[in-house]
Amino acid sequence: MIARRFYAAASLLRRFFYGRGTLALRGACVKATRGLSEVETSQSIMTFLDHIRVCNDHDPARYLPFIAAGSRVGWVARDFAARLEAFADIFAINDAAIALRDDLADFDARTAAMKRVTDALRADGTVTAWRDEFYAVAPRFGAAPLFKIERAAAPKFGVTSLGVHLNGIVRTKDTNGGKSLSMWVSRRSAVKATYPNELDNLCAGGISYGHGVRDTLIKEAHEEASMPAHLAERAAPASAITYCCERDGGLRPDILFVYDVELPADFTPSPNDGESAGFELWPIERVMATVRGSYDFKFNCNLVIIDFLIREGLIGPDEPDYLALVTGLRRWVGGASAGDVVELGALKGTKS
Amino acid sequence: MIARRFYAAASLLRRFFYGRGTLALRGACVKATRGLSEVETSQSIMTFLDHIRVCNDHDPARYLPFIAAGSRVGWVARDFAARLEAFADIFAINDAAIALRDDLADFDARTAAMKRVTDALRADGTVTAWRDEFYAVAPRFGAAPLFKIERAAAPKFGVTSLGVHLNGIVRTKDTNGGKSLSMWVSRRSAVKATYPNELDNLCAGGISYGHGVRDTLIKEAHEEASMPAHLAERAAPASAITYCCERDGGLRPDILFVYDVELPADFTPSPNDGESAGFELWPIERVMATVRGSYDFKFNCNLVIIDFLIREGLIGPDEPDYLALVTGLRRWVGGASAGDVVELGALKGTKS
Repeated sequence: MIARRFYAAASLLRRFFYGRGTLALRGACVKATRGLSEVETSQSIMTFLDHIRVCNDHDPARYLPFIAAGSRVGWVARDFAARLEAFADIFAINDAAIALRDDLADFDARTAAMKRVTDALRADGTVTAWRDEFYAVAPRFGAAPLFKIERAAAPKFGVTSLGVHLNGIVRTKDTNGGKSLSMWVSRRSAVKATYPNELDNLCAGGISYGHGVRDTLIKEAHEEASMPAHLAERAAPASAITYCCERDGGLRPDILFVYDVELPADFTPSPNDGESAGFELWPIERVMATVRGSYDFKFNCNLVIIDFLIREGLIGPDEPDYLALVTGLRRWVGGASAGDVVELGALKGTKS
Repeated sequence: MIARRFYAAASLLRRFFYGRGTLALRGACVKATRGLSEVETSQSIMTFLDHIRVCNDHDPARYLPFIAAGSRVGWVARDFAARLEAFADIFAINDAAIALRDDLADFDARTAAMKRVTDALRADGTVTAWRDEFYAVAPRFGAAPLFKIERAAAPKFGVTSLGVHLNGIVRTKDTNGGKSLSMWVSRRSAVKATYPNELDNLCAGGISYGHGVRDTLIKEAHEEASMPAHLAERAAPASAITYCCERDGGLRPDILFVYDVELPADFTPSPNDGESAGFELWPIERVMATVRGSYDFKFNCNLVIIDFLIREGLIGPDEPDYLALVTGLRRWVGGASAGDVVELGALKGTKS
């Protein structure tokens, strides 16, 4: 909780004072917010592991399993479940779980019922930043979806969201044979509904109902970074990251599919749909220092970069938290078993 | 259990019929043992995930936490704990745990006491394949060791062992610009005490008390594969793998540090200390097919290769088990919390 509260406070302060600052200003801004935050002062130096804590910070006791067709498909906050009692024809609710009623027997019936609920939540202002975009809801990745749900409402029901993130890499050799590694960094638009002005991977996006991982990647690469398909198609899957945090009004058990693409030195990404305010090519050492020492990157992008640094050998067994990082990047298994909650509880206890 | 029993049976049969066969023979041999195994027949086609199951197959209910200086440092089978009651001045044992007595107050006292126990276990034939080599015993990787223990006795006390494995890679371009990727495969010596004749990574070894991860890697690369230091030093850390299985007379919660090294096409590894019977350079497709379809590689080397294939993008989100593989490679967190046991129990339930 402390980590999350600090994150939220620092993020707010940064946006207030430096909302439209340049990338170069942001290092100074973190120092400024640090000086203002008692929490951060008392924690002394932050580590890579703090980002994993931020992304896994939640209180399992606050949530009820959300059941559909006999499988757990999400988590609903107990106080929010009480409000859903108004939809008595849709939900069966007790102290142990909230379930879609069994007479909602197929995909279409469940989807229509959930649409009625989410439309009402939109109308009364509970769910904002409406997307008109659906997430598939299934017991696990790859299983047949039981229904689909408006993306903006997914956290309220603790539905697992799938995303794809792309690391854009440039490797160069100097005339002496020395090698250097750089990474494209995006700054999110100041007018974006979520996480404005924060740093981001080259491109990233949620995987909507009916879309595949790779399709989404190629679409986002074009829309966010003006990457031509022949370059985006060079991207290769490299990893997956899982975490679960309280955010956006509910629980977010997220799965990120991580891709890398090695880009030619003569390609420069540029904003297309306005999601990104601009791109800069940073030496990997600067990326690493920024992740290690600040919350400048959007919360989950830190994990994508830590994963990259581990695969690249730039974070290795000499790092005291190495094993905690490697295992922590996939701490939330997102399956259907009740063991998930226990597991997250265990993580909260591992703070060293 | 089924997976482990099949593994043991297939391994035995392979050794009996093809113990000294060439690498080329081993594909045929797996087919032969498959035909002989009812278990495998009933399971139809094996998958990458079967290797993760084999490496995590154990029954937590059989074990008591092994405590030293207030921290859990291992796991002792309940029936074996009963035998340790003979050492009443060393162990305090009840239904919930077995602990080194508190008056064994420092590293030397604990080490001397455990030496007395393990010497007795060696004398009565309980512990075989004595190594005269020690493992550090600590609550977690990086913490100060509480004592050291003879390596051969480590599984009897469920002590976490640390190992390092090296993927030896060769990347080539043909005259048309096509790229190919190959991996060096070792066959373990027929006279090796553990897992003779099985396939292995380029080199691998346990990390003994007082040695570092990288030191061990460079030493093993020289001893097992005749790699000169200037080549071994090119190896970079790439990942870590954790698992826990019943094996070698007890519980093995293992942590493997994975390194990759890209080797020049003109280097050929060769046996030095007799641990390896020989090396072959395989196209990655052959390595992948062998891991996917057989138990030819030593049990944990399969995980090292699966991890490599994931990082290389050769196993991606199109693989139905992709998320189960990525998370399963670090399923056992090896920490001090009781959550470990619950976690392993959860994995056993995830068989799809």
